[in-house]
Amino acid sequence: MKIVVDAMGGDFAPQAVVEGAVLATREFGFPVILVGLSDAIQEELDKYEDAKNLPIEVHHADEVVEMHDSPSKALRTKKKSSMKIGLDLVKEGEGEAFISAGNTGAVLAYSTIILRPLKGVDRPAIAIQLPTLQGSAILLDAGANVDCKSNQLFQFGIMGHVYAKYILGLDEPGVGLLSIGEEDGKGNEVTKEAFRWLSKSHIRFIGNVEAKEVYRGNADVIVCDGFTGNVALKISESLAEMIGTNLKTLFTSGIVPKMGYLMLKGRLREFKKSVDYSEAGGAPLLGVNGVVIIAHGSSNAKAVKNAILRAHEFVEKKVNQHIREDIEYNLDSKGSFWQHIKEIVAGHDENGGVPNKTPTSPKAVLEESEEELEPETTDETPTEEPDKP
Amino acid sequence: MKIVVDAMGGDFAPQAVVEGAVLATREFGFPVILVGLSDAIQEELDKYEDAKNLPIEVHHADEVVEMHDSPSKALRTKKKSSMKIGLDLVKEGEGEAFISAGNTGAVLAYSTIILRPLKGVDRPAIAIQLPTLQGSAILLDAGANVDCKSNQLFQFGIMGHVYAKYILGLDEPGVGLLSIGEEDGKGNEVTKEAFRWLSKSHIRFIGNVEAKEVYRGNADVIVCDGFTGNVALKISESLAEMIGTNLKTLFTSGIVPKMGYLMLKGRLREFKKSVDYSEAGGAPLLGVNGVVIIAHGSSNAKAVKNAILRAHEFVEKKVNQHIREDIEYNLDSKGSFWQHIKEIVAGHDENGGVPNKTPTSPKAVLEESEEELEPETTDETPTEEPDKP
Repeated sequence: MKIVVDAMGGDFAPQAVVEGAVLATREFGFPVILVGLSDAIQEELDKYEDAKNLPIEVHHADEVVEMHDSPSKALRTKKKSSMKIGLDLVKEGEGEAFISAGNTGAVLAYSTIILRPLKGVDRPAIAIQLPTLQGSAILLDAGANVDCKSNQLFQFGIMGHVYAKYILGLDEPGVGLLSIGEEDGKGNEVTKEAFRWLSKSHIRFIGNVEAKEVYRGNADVIVCDGFTGNVALKISESLAEMIGTNLKTLFTSGIVPKMGYLMLKGRLREFKKSVDYSEAGGAPLLGVNGVVIIAHGSSNAKAVKNAILRAHEFVEKKVNQHIREDIEYNLDSKGSFWQHIKEIVAGHDENGGVPNKTPTSPKAVLEESEEELEPETTDETPTEEPDKP
Repeated sequence: MKIVVDAMGGDFAPQAVVEGAVLATREFGFPVILVGLSDAIQEELDKYEDAKNLPIEVHHADEVVEMHDSPSKALRTKKKSSMKIGLDLVKEGEGEAFISAGNTGAVLAYSTIILRPLKGVDRPAIAIQLPTLQGSAILLDAGANVDCKSNQLFQFGIMGHVYAKYILGLDEPGVGLLSIGEEDGKGNEVTKEAFRWLSKSHIRFIGNVEAKEVYRGNADVIVCDGFTGNVALKISESLAEMIGTNLKTLFTSGIVPKMGYLMLKGRLREFKKSVDYSEAGGAPLLGVNGVVIIAHGSSNAKAVKNAILRAHEFVEKKVNQHIREDIEYNLDSKGSFWQHIKEIVAGHDENGGVPNKTPTSPKAVLEESEEELEPETTDETPTEEPDKP
């Protein structure tokens, strides 16, 4: 299994990225392909005596997507960028995962266009691991999709379930829908419909979760649209910053001794990093046909190493295969889900309520996307038929 | 000017409410009408020797809306509740403001139905005053409207501007639109359109504000839909709680001495209260044809007293009149705003873009709502024609 790394992405590229690749290959032994300006990469590699013996390949790419480039412009004009070429390698099967600490919007755009969404997935989502009083929780979407339909929220729920089950190792992760009240009927039009869909899925859907519950950790997975997710994460960052400043004031006024302040400060900074999705050593972009990890622009070598390890884990634990299977299971098994969708649509008509916009159901999305997607190239077959994936 | 207070609303009613009214009338001298079960209210009043000399009237109401009542059920079945009768008094001009620490959803529903929205306002919004590094900021809507259209966000902007200008006393408050990026083009479909409308208004619109900026205090007013606003406030509460727990752990591990911990804990608790809209001594429901203050269920006498003072301030500073004038100004002045709306609609048609849903503009909302609204009963006339309200 080869991990493809964008050597030109991030504030400290290529230095930090090359060093991260050296650390990862030394420690874990699996091969890495560094993509970018080969001379610059080689110059960095030459700094390590053992680099020649490490399983690192260099793959040349002429262009670099800059942090300030608009994603759409990058897509149109930089056809030879390290991002484009790196993702092409994954698409062609040369590598099994792609990591970049570069321009997040561009990684998102390139990944969606080049790798395409997984069968059954409408749009990929960024999943963040948050600290909670009970450990951690996964929140998605953290900002990839500002306008979401209910079928997308449903898919995010399934993807979050798979992440928590196979990567966090939770047997039956509790999946909650972020809303403005715990009661079933609370929410906006989109969440109310997503609630009904998630209720009928095979995952342990724990219903609506109020934002005040997020850091209590009672939900393992928190589902929301990318606009709300972005606001929730960024305002948390803002509050941690304000509390940090208040602590500093207390410190400088001599009430809290230095030792205590520094410990608190450290925790707050740690928290601030953990809610900034790209700081957390890499947030997966779930739902594309390949493993993509988005690392923070300011990633140091250690962060790059961790991102490489995480990418390896996603490939090894077949996260994408599980996502596809779990979505299909909900769409097909005994027709129950499909039946349910019909009931919803019928119910809506009776109420003279909200008309369904396209696409009307995950099934429809699936059929629609099937037409334009390349067939999956996977030689992994499930060892047994899951009775409940 | 009489302030009408729901004596039966809140966890400690009627005791805390009656005490709050006593404190307020003693200190400020303006009259208060207590509405509810008259025997219970009188019993509480009899505890104060000077009560007979205070300007407190008791107005009987047979029924009480309970905290767990569904707002729609309360509306239908409790026609003699203290909320209904209290709001009727305001509608009939017997009182000029209404305060309740009772069921928030019911206050919202009753207020909208009985007082009706102000001319030019589609839906009322709950406005919260948040602490920031620079003092405070107003966030609206904090949860009254889960599904908002862009014209509503535009109206929230105007209402927030008026609140900040006349109540906080800021000359030219900076009004920002909560979004996922600072750049003009960032946001979802609704915020993008609201951005264009706010850009052409007379208020100091500072553009998009990212959630990470909220507690930095660079915006005096933050505009968002009620779903996002609720999530932003509640997740802040959740984070403050988690940080508080972490501080406690540090404390019990003996690293931070008790003194410092207690101070920090106090600040966090204070913060937690301030983001819980109803804790903050009362959050105004802006945009109804009368002053309504929603106080927290757990309000003590001091909180009730503060809410009475705040209500008085809203009446005295003619907040509703300013909201109406400012919205009209944007709709009518020299036709420029209307022209702008036409441009937007034309632009949309050219782009084959998002069709406008009903209502298509604030103007349309205004005309639409005018038909069903009673004429305003105000004897206040502006002393001079504002060139820029």
